[in-house]
This record gives sequence, C-alpha cells and structure tokens, in this order.
Amino acid sequence: MDAAILAIGSEMLTPQRVDTNSLYITGHLNARGVEVLFKLVVGDNRDHLVQALDYALRRVDLIFVSGGLGPTEDDLTRDAVAMVCNRQLLFSQEICGWIEQRFARMNRTMAEVNKRQAYVVEGAHVLPNERGTAPGQWVEHEGRHIVLLPGPPHELKAMFQQQCLPRLDTLLPEQVIRTRFYRVAGMGESDLDQLIAPVYNKYTNPATTILAAAGDIQIHLRARCRNEAQAEALLAEVGDPIEALLGDRVYSHNGDSLEATVGRMLHDRGMTIAVAESCTGGMLGEKITSVPGSSGYFAGGFLTYSYAAKQRLLGIDADFLNTHKAVSEPVAKAMAEAARHKTGADIAVSVTGVAGPSQGGESEPVGSIFVAVASDQGCHARHVQFAGDRHRIRALACQIALDAVRRQLLRQYSSK
Amino acid sequence: MDAAILAIGSEMLTPQRVDTNSLYITGHLNARGVEVLFKLVVGDNRDHLVQALDYALRRVDLIFVSGGLGPTEDDLTRDAVAMVCNRQLLFSQEICGWIEQRFARMNRTMAEVNKRQAYVVEGAHVLPNERGTAPGQWVEHEGRHIVLLPGPPHELKAMFQQQCLPRLDTLLPEQVIRTRFYRVAGMGESDLDQLIAPVYNKYTNPATTILAAAGDIQIHLRARCRNEAQAEALLAEVGDPIEALLGDRVYSHNGDSLEATVGRMLHDRGMTIAVAESCTGGMLGEKITSVPGSSGYFAGGFLTYSYAAKQRLLGIDADFLNTHKAVSEPVAKAMAEAARHKTGADIAVSVTGVAGPSQGGESEPVGSIFVAVASDQGCHARHVQFAGDRHRIRALACQIALDAVRRQLLRQYSSK
Repeated sequence: MDAAILAIGSEMLTPQRVDTNSLYITGHLNARGVEVLFKLVVGDNRDHLVQALDYALRRVDLIFVSGGLGPTEDDLTRDAVAMVCNRQLLFSQEICGWIEQRFARMNRTMAEVNKRQAYVVEGAHVLPNERGTAPGQWVEHEGRHIVLLPGPPHELKAMFQQQCLPRLDTLLPEQVIRTRFYRVAGMGESDLDQLIAPVYNKYTNPATTILAAAGDIQIHLRARCRNEAQAEALLAEVGDPIEALLGDRVYSHNGDSLEATVGRMLHDRGMTIAVAESCTGGMLGEKITSVPGSSGYFAGGFLTYSYAAKQRLLGIDADFLNTHKAVSEPVAKAMAEAARHKTGADIAVSVTGVAGPSQGGESEPVGSIFVAVASDQGCHARHVQFAGDRHRIRALACQIALDAVRRQLLRQYSSK
Repeated sequence: MDAAILAIGSEMLTPQRVDTNSLYITGHLNARGVEVLFKLVVGDNRDHLVQALDYALRRVDLIFVSGGLGPTEDDLTRDAVAMVCNRQLLFSQEICGWIEQRFARMNRTMAEVNKRQAYVVEGAHVLPNERGTAPGQWVEHEGRHIVLLPGPPHELKAMFQQQCLPRLDTLLPEQVIRTRFYRVAGMGESDLDQLIAPVYNKYTNPATTILAAAGDIQIHLRARCRNEAQAEALLAEVGDPIEALLGDRVYSHNGDSLEATVGRMLHDRGMTIAVAESCTGGMLGEKITSVPGSSGYFAGGFLTYSYAAKQRLLGIDADFLNTHKAVSEPVAKAMAEAARHKTGADIAVSVTGVAGPSQGGESEPVGSIFVAVASDQGCHARHVQFAGDRHRIRALACQIALDAVRRQLLRQYSSK
C-alpha cells in the first residue's frame, strides 16, 4: 500500500510555517511498511482542494488529509471530500451533542458556527476527537481510503494513535522495514557516490538515499520484505560491501553527529580535549560543547583569531609567527601543543586558515586550512583546500578537525 | 501570476526531513505579490516527478523545482522536465568546463558522474551556480516558467537571489514596492506584538510581517503603491510610531545581524572585544567572527566550560569559584574582567549559565544565564532566565551577551 499526505491551510503556504504533522504520520506509516509517495500542501480553497484530492485518489491507496475541519467558512475539507467522492454531507445529531457537551464541560455555550463540524461525509466512519471539537472521518471510496484529521498536532496525534493505527493494521499485508545508516566525514559527495554506486545501483530494494551537507554525508539503506530475516539479508548484501569500501571513513552507524561520536570516544577512554581556533573563531568549541555532557571531557579552548592573540593567549613567539605566517603547518602545530599544555588536556586540536571572503594578510589562498592534533603520541598536521563561502569553509574546517581527532583516537585505541 | 513549489528528494518523504527551501522562495514571491497556490514534495522517481510537473503546469504560471540536480542516478529533475516539455537534454561542453574548473580550484579531478550535471533542457536558460556544481535552469514552456534550482539551501538561496529575482522582476506588472525593516533584540515575540499591534493592525498596506528567532525579532513593513512618494508616506505613517515605541531596542534598520551591528560599532569606535564563554562553549566567539572583517576588532577568547578551565585559563581563584559557584554574577564579572585583562581588549563580555538538559552541579536552574561586560567604565552584569532546549538557551544567551555589549557601546558613545 502507498500513501499520500495532504496538509490543508493557507498558513502553510506562507514563508513562516511548514507542515510537520506529515513527519509524525510518515513515521508511523513507514514503520508499517507503507511508503509516502508524495505530500501536497494546499490552501483553504475548495477548487484547489478538490483537485488535490482527485490527484491523490488516482495515485495512492491511502490519503491522509490534515486540517480544514474547523468551524469557520474557510474550513472546506469536509465539503471537498464529499464532492470528490460524489456523496452528500449529512448532519449528525450525535456529533452535535458531543460538541455541545465539550463546550458545557468548559462552562461555555457552543457557538452556532460549530454546527458545521457535525456534518459527516455520507458513509464515513467517525473518529472521535478527545482533544478538540473537530471529529475525524475515515472514508472508503472505490477501494481507497481518505482519512480526515484535525490540523492541531496534539489533536491529530492522539486521534492517529488511538483511532487510525488500529484500522490501518487491519488493512496491511504483513511486511517489515529494516534500515542501515552510515555517516561519513572527509569525502565529497560525488567521490563517495562514484565509490559505492556500483554496489547499490543494482538494487531497488533496499532503497539507497545519499544526503550531503558540508563535510558530512549520510547514507540510508532501507529494505522492505515479508520478514525480518529477508530484510536483514538484503541489507547485508548491499551494506556490507559499502562498509568495506568506506572503511574507517564511516564514523557513525546510528545517526550520531561527528561531535557526538568524538565525544563518546573521549568519554569511553576517559580523556579530555582542548581547542585552539583561529579562523573558526569558536565554531569548533561550539560544536564540541553542543553535545550534552561535554563538560565531562571539554578542558577548554582559546580563540586566537589575530597574531596578537596567538602570542598573548597561547604564548607563540612573534618571530616564529612572522616567519611562518599564521596560516601554516608549524603554527597549527604550535597552537595545538600550546592549547594542550595550557589546559592540561589529553588531546588538543587546532584550526588555522583563511575563511575569506578576502585573503587578509595571508599568503595562502581563501579556503586553505591547516588542522593539527597534539597528544602524547606527538603532533600531526593536515592541510586541505576548500571552496565555498565563509560559513561553509568554517564548517568544513570544523569537520576536518573533528575527524582528525577521531582518527587519532582510533589509532591510540588500537595501539593500546 | 501564481506559483507552485516542487521539492524533489526521497529524504523529504521520510519522518526526519522537511523541505524548508520553499519558505525562502515563498517569502520572496509574496514580497512581489506572487502567491504560492500549492507545494508538492515528490521522491526521486521519474514517473512521480513527471506527474507532479504535469499537475503544476496545468495550474500555475511559475513552477520552482528544488533538488534532483546532483550527479547521481537518482537525480532525475532534468530528465523529467525535458520529458514533460517534450524536449531533448543536450550536453553542454561549457558547463562541463565550469564544473571541471570548480574541481580544479579544489585540487581535485572531476568524477565522471559529474558530467550528468552538464546536461541542459533544450532551449533552457542556464543559471550558474556559484556555490556548487549543479547549475540551475530556467525553462519557458507554452507561456509558463519552470525554474530548476539545486537542493542545498546555500546554493539555492544564492542562485535565487542573483539569477531568479532579476528575471522574475521582468515578468511582473509594474509597481513600486518600498520596505522598512527593523531588527529587535531582548524582547519576546508576544510582548513585542502586544506593544506594536495596535499601530500596524489597522493597515493591510503596508503589510507587516513579524519573524521571530531565538532572541531576535525581525519586523518587515512592505508598501505596494503606484509611486514611490505614496509608498514612503505609508511606511512613515506606520513605521514612525513603531520606531517610537521600540526605541533603542531596535538594533538594525538595514537587516544587519546583531553581531554585524556590534562589529560595526566596534570598528567605528576603533575598539577591540574579547569573550569568556562557559555554557556557550564558543558560540559567542563564532557569532562575532562570522562577520567578515572581524579580525580587525576580535582580540580573542577563552572557552572555560569547566571549573578547572576557569582557574587555569582565566586565573579565577578556586575558593572564589567554590564560594559563588560558576553560574553567578561574581563569576560572570570575574570572567569578563580576566578576559579583558589577558587579551588587552577595550571591552570584554562573558557568559555563564546552565544550558541543560541537566543542572550539572549548579544550584541555578536550567536556563539561568549571567552575562557581564567589562570596559574602562567598570563591569556590569545581567541575569536572565530562559526556557527551551540546550541549543535555544545557548543561542538566547549569545543574543543577550551581544545586546549587552551594544548597550554598553551606546552608553560610552553618548557619554563622550
């Protein structure tokens, strides 16, 4: 079975609001092996709504419609569904009674407009609303299902959980969905795809999705099968060779971010970390400390953007700085070593580079980044050249720095 | 003219991801009087994409399609648009050259798969991509316009701003649009709205939009008129009383961020700034140095998340720390003063607080934040209590710290 989700409401066509109900619904559908083929957001307009419903009815078995069940003139979902199914809207005295009682419990009198909410599409199964006045409706039409749900998330979720899931389960053939998930640092998207596409290309099941952000790629494998053993076997068939190709470039199998992964490694080894940042100006420290519990392993940091700060805060010699220039391997190493020494951390990482937009006084080009990692195993530096705007270059520099720490921790761990 | 937005990508049909590009696009379209009639999210599937494009082509004049322009097999937007318009896809040697040059600038060789990105829908106008490899395309088809944009937001936004808006403006009927823009720090959204709603409520032209982020509110006034004088008169009628009510809480009239505003003030006064961060862990430094040219006034910073770091890096006395606890006014002041002294900066700002999710060893509740500003006018501290998750509390703390610096700079300036 395939599904579509329609979100109704002109406010979701403004620059301020996105539909989030569909994420909740999708999560529950996916867990039952139902894929969402498309999502449509439509304003409070009867013609647009009818057209959208018609489009969905021609393509999927299950249509979830959220919103447009309120009491006002622009709540048109009931009318549109009746129209597209060629049925009447019937007034339900029973529902009207529920709504009146709900108002009475709040010591209020039901407004006349609320009677609009007591109209039901002919033949629909009514879904009571515990948390609001608008009841839901489940309409069967020519072997397809249209489910009308209220827009407010707390009403929708309760109704979906209590009323829709049990009905859904009676409709579905047994099937399971199993997923694998990898996160990879330090590779470009096209390089990665060229490496692994020959593996996943031959399969539509599991489905492979690749998502790329600055210095961070996510790979999702998703298998749909009759039973768990089949699904796991398919995932192994595709996932194992991908893992072998990527090797230790995979930093997470569970969705954790790079900073969370590094944090867990530090925590597990009982080690502390310090940073010395030049061009990233705090972004690396911010990332490390964005992880709850990072106070347990973050020993501190120095923001030394200028030559003067590198001298005053880290004690780097002025002649040394002027000889090598701030964006250089020797200075990156001196920064990491000084940060380690001054904080007493087990490991320290430094970043120095040219984030742009201009080169400043440096001889290196915009996007040139040096990172260094100092530990009791010595100090190692790496140079990379990035392209992009200032924010992207800084974000990429942080990923490279965190990945350098991760690799050092992997080495130290395996050597012990 | 009416528009529709199609977001392409199977990841946006998972429970984890929503399309946000459409919000950005909608903002700019609305500002030009173009309404978005519907939004469609479709997976990486050629048939579904063709059907969605066909649906949109029958209903609106302008179709913005984001995503599916990457180099991999599941990037199908080019193919689908060619198919629905009944045109060929032609290989462009020129675009292939651009992509190769982009890789060369990063000292990399273009992967073979990237050649897919050099295919253009017959007759399309190519939109260069400054920030990525996928060029956009603007296709005219039977009086309608299909605009293909890359999925990554930073690529899409740059392309939309530079390439699409000028083309769009040539299509739209002549009218004058004039705007006023305020950014406000240190007020909640509902407090602000309660204050200024009585002014703007009576007007639909200018249209007032209020956008709230953590500790930062933007107010847009937008007048659409036949001529400039009418538009400016309307803006003054609504904007002047709003400015009078908000006073010095308005930190920017031109859209500059708080960190850019503070940076400009420091630059104009020839002053330098230092930071000492506890719970924000680098976020404040990152914000200050996100502004190009900040190397001219950022004197450096200390990330002192732990008690030990406050002692070692800032020289704060252990007894003093244990007496007052790290989240306290005296420690906030000691941090700011030490940062100023150790860097030699004219002004220093500190943040200490409980970002959560747990209280750690502190006696203050989650969300309790102290900021202090030290200058040659002495040291002033401020306490605030925020609600929200870890990220929000840290972001709010940075806004309060920056706003405290701004107010101190305003005072020093006016007293001289």
